[in-house]
Formats: sequence, C-alpha cells, structure tokens
Amino acid sequence: MDPKKARRAVVVTTPAEARAACDEARKRGLRVGLVPTMGALHEGHLALTRLARQKADFVVCSIFVNPTQFGPNEDFDRYPRDLEGDVTKLTEVDLVFAPSVQAMYPPGDETRVRVGALAEHLCGPHRPGHFEGVATVVTKLFGVVGPCTAVFGKKDYQQLAVLRRVVTDLFLPVDVVGHPILREPDGLAMSSRNAYLSPEERAKALSLSHGLAAAARAFEAGERRAGTLRELAYAPVAAVATSIDYVTVADADALVPFADGASVGARATLAIACRVGKTRLIDNVVLGEDLASSIIPAF
Amino acid sequence: MDPKKARRAVVVTTPAEARAACDEARKRGLRVGLVPTMGALHEGHLALTRLARQKADFVVCSIFVNPTQFGPNEDFDRYPRDLEGDVTKLTEVDLVFAPSVQAMYPPGDETRVRVGALAEHLCGPHRPGHFEGVATVVTKLFGVVGPCTAVFGKKDYQQLAVLRRVVTDLFLPVDVVGHPILREPDGLAMSSRNAYLSPEERAKALSLSHGLAAAARAFEAGERRAGTLRELAYAPVAAVATSIDYVTVADADALVPFADGASVGARATLAIACRVGKTRLIDNVVLGEDLASSIIPAF
Repeated sequence: MDPKKARRAVVVTTPAEARAACDEARKRGLRVGLVPTMGALHEGHLALTRLARQKADFVVCSIFVNPTQFGPNEDFDRYPRDLEGDVTKLTEVDLVFAPSVQAMYPPGDETRVRVGALAEHLCGPHRPGHFEGVATVVTKLFGVVGPCTAVFGKKDYQQLAVLRRVVTDLFLPVDVVGHPILREPDGLAMSSRNAYLSPEERAKALSLSHGLAAAARAFEAGERRAGTLRELAYAPVAAVATSIDYVTVADADALVPFADGASVGARATLAIACRVGKTRLIDNVVLGEDLASSIIPAF
Repeated sequence: MDPKKARRAVVVTTPAEARAACDEARKRGLRVGLVPTMGALHEGHLALTRLARQKADFVVCSIFVNPTQFGPNEDFDRYPRDLEGDVTKLTEVDLVFAPSVQAMYPPGDETRVRVGALAEHLCGPHRPGHFEGVATVVTKLFGVVGPCTAVFGKKDYQQLAVLRRVVTDLFLPVDVVGHPILREPDGLAMSSRNAYLSPEERAKALSLSHGLAAAARAFEAGERRAGTLRELAYAPVAAVATSIDYVTVADADALVPFADGASVGARATLAIACRVGKTRLIDNVVLGEDLASSIIPAF
C-alpha cells in the first residue's frame, strides 16, 4: 500500500480537542477543510472529503447525528450509526470529530441560529425546526473548527443555501463549497437513508431521478413553463410514492417556488421530497446547470 | 503630549476592512480586544477600552447603532450619534469599526441568533426581539473581528449574560469580560441615554441607584428575603418613575426571578428598569458581590 494513502485519521470527541488540533494545523501554515456529516458514510460523503483534500491541507470530518434537526416523529433514534466503520473509510481525513450530544449541547445550552425566508419553502414547512437545527449545529462546528473551507453535498440543496446564508450574514470566516450530487449507476441519489429501503422500494425510488432527468431534458430542449417541468417530475413520483411533501420548481437562490403558470429563466431548481415506503427521500436538479455537468446519467 | 498617548484610531466602515486589520494584527502576534458600542461614548465606555487595552494589544471599538435591537416604538431614530466626537475620545483604541446599517445588514440578510430562557425575564418581556437583535449583531461583530477578548459593561447585565451564553453555546473563540458599572459621583449609572434627562429628571433618576444601594446595604447586614430586598429598591423608584418595567431580584446567572417569599442565598442580582420622564433607564447591583467592590458610592 502506498504509505501516502495510509492516512489514519485521529478521532477526538470534545470541542476543545478539535479546536486545539485545528489551531495547531493553522499554526503550521495548513489550510483547514471541514466536511460535516451525520456518519453512516457512503461514497457521496467520501467525494466531499476528496474535494476538501483538494482545497485544504488538514481535513476534518465531523460525525454527529444532530438531534435538533430531527422532528419528534422523525428517525433520530434509528438513524444508522457506525463510527468504527466510518473512520476506516475516511482515508482522506486527518481528524474525525465525533462528539456526544452532551458535548455539543451541554446543560444550559439555549442559543439557536435561524434563517427566515429561505427556510419557509421546500422542506421547511414539512420539517418545522429542521433548518434551525442545521444552522445551529453547523455554526457550532464552524466555531469549533475556525476558519476553513467547508464542503457540503448538493443533494441537501436547501441546507446548502441556508448555510451559505448563515456564513454570509454572520461574517463567518468560512468558504462554503457545494459538491454535485453523487448517484448510483442507475441514477438514485446516494443517501444514508437508502439503507432503509427494501428491494422493492429501492426500485420504486428510481422514479425521483427519472422524473428529474425527464424535466432536465425538457428544459434543455427549451421548455420553460414551470408547471410543465414540474409535472414531468411529479408524474413518475406520484406513481410510486407513499406520500409527497413537494415537487417544486423554485428560484435557484432564494428558493421561492414558481407558480405553475410562470416561466422559469435560465436557471431554476427542481426539487422533490417524498416517502417511498416509510423512508423520506429528497433529490433535486438545477435546471440549466447540472445536466451540463452530466450528474444525471442518461437512461 | 506623550507620543505614546497620542494614539489615533484608524476608522474603517466595512466588515472586510475590519477583518483584514484584525487578521493583520494577529499575524503580527498581537492579541485583539473588542469593545462593541453604539457610540455616544461616555466615561463608562472609555473604561471598557482601558480594560481591553490591559487584556489585548490591538483594541477595536465598534460604533454601530443596531436597528434590530430597537423596538418599533423605541428611540432608534433619536439615539445620540456623534462619530467624530467619539473617535477623538478613543485614545486607547487602534481601530474604530463604524459600519453602516447596510454594511451589517445587506440586502438578503436574514440570519438571526437567539437565546431562550435567558431572554424571558427582566427586560425580555418588555423589549420583544431586543436580545435577539443584540445576540445577532454581536455574533456578526465576533465574526468580523475573529478571536478576541470582548469587554462589555455590567449595566446591561442581562445583555452580558446573553452574550456569554451565545459565546459558550456557539463555541466562539471569544473571551467575554464584564466591567463594573461606572457611576457619576452621586451614584447615577453612566448611560448614553442620560443625555435625554432634564435637570429635574436627572435628580429623580438618582432613585435607582439609591434604591439599589439601600437593598445592597440591607443584604450586607444579613437580609435575605427577596421581597424585602426588592421593596427597598422599589419604593424610591416608585416615588419618581413615570412607569416601571420591573424591579426584580433574580438568580445572578440564570436570571430567574425569586418569588418575594424566597430567600436569596449568597449571591443574587437586583435589577431595575423604569422610565423617568420619557427616558428608559436600567440599573442593577449584584448582591454579595458589587458592594464589596465599592461600585455604589456611600451616600
């Protein structure tokens, strides 16, 4: 084995240890990269760490299943956890920060970070408090790690928009980078929650990326009517989903939905959230952007 | 004039300039100190800058009348502003950061920082949104300035508690230091809002510190009944105030009020907010702590 590749991440569990390691790295002149995750790592996460490695010299991966971003009826308790397995996968990472809930939310903790309008659309109404939980825990992670380049996947498109907003508004010394969605060969967006799917559900779940691809192809062929683009994604999802939270064409930055009768401009986000069986899945495509970068495989 | 004393602060107005100056100072090995103010500087503010000078090598004073901490019927518009006069007073300061509202809250800004229980007592119910505005703008300032020692006056006792909470909860690299209340020779707590007082109101306003001193003396003599301590402060204030928001004995850290029948233990905060004429004044004493440090003059 190439010894350069045999990087073995150091695992720390307290904010103080993580901060000390990052400060020490910066003192040595290294640029710090951060990949915040909830663990249960798949190839999508590993792609984020590889991008962080390109942008930084000292890469931190946080693994923390954050309770404040789960609703009372969501899957916090059964969310997959496998710290040991995760650490062995992180060959591009120098430091794994895997704190306890108590370490991130000690007794007395009561500060929360929220965004306004950006959290009102898409997943916002369906997951009350979710983006406040996300914004809060990531602001905490930025506080611990300090100045860094932070890499997030675009599957959580709204999350990425919220975090860019937080960084801009609070003047945080963080460079936020989005990574294209990683997909299975058949098009399914990679997600830790895919592990919940039965074989039948796994097959049905393909309808999300199929619908997005159909809309993206129509967009590329010149279709601009929001309702038509939406329907192209909606129809296959409606055929398989247990329930649909939304299939929405929205402004790519402000996330404000287009009315069905509106014409989308040169760029828009088409996003889906639905349940297949009991598993909530999300996926999206940026029309006028992602198809060109071949994120959605032809099929 | 001693040239060492002729420090002339550099004034910058954009977050980028302020960050660059602070990063540059840290690169030179200097410790950065921060004194956030709303300007209209008085001797109390200058004492904060002197304490910052003791704790740091590069002292930043921010001057920003923050709109998000004022309610719709409060004095944002008429709050005293005198940037030029302020700058000449700041002989202990290296950098004055005096941003516009637009610079701190550019178009699209929507992130807010809030604390929960700490904002529910004392001024919280009387100034809805005030502490969210304070927590937000100071988190922004911490983002701009970076790792620092930040000095705040104890007159805004609840504000100090809120900001300590924010720094702890968000793991910000900031050392928060509280400075004892500065008072006029007759006991009135220094405040930019004292400028609003007519001579008659100025005389009446003494009742706040008189009431606090009476309670503090009783505490020192062994009185521990919350209701009795409260009444000692309440009576003189009630005699002069146009209206009273609260006269409260509260836990010195969590700020939860004691019931009148309770016994207060070794340490508690006695806090007042009321109007004298149209001017809202606040004052407080930490029983079991401040009297010993002679903050309230004998009278």
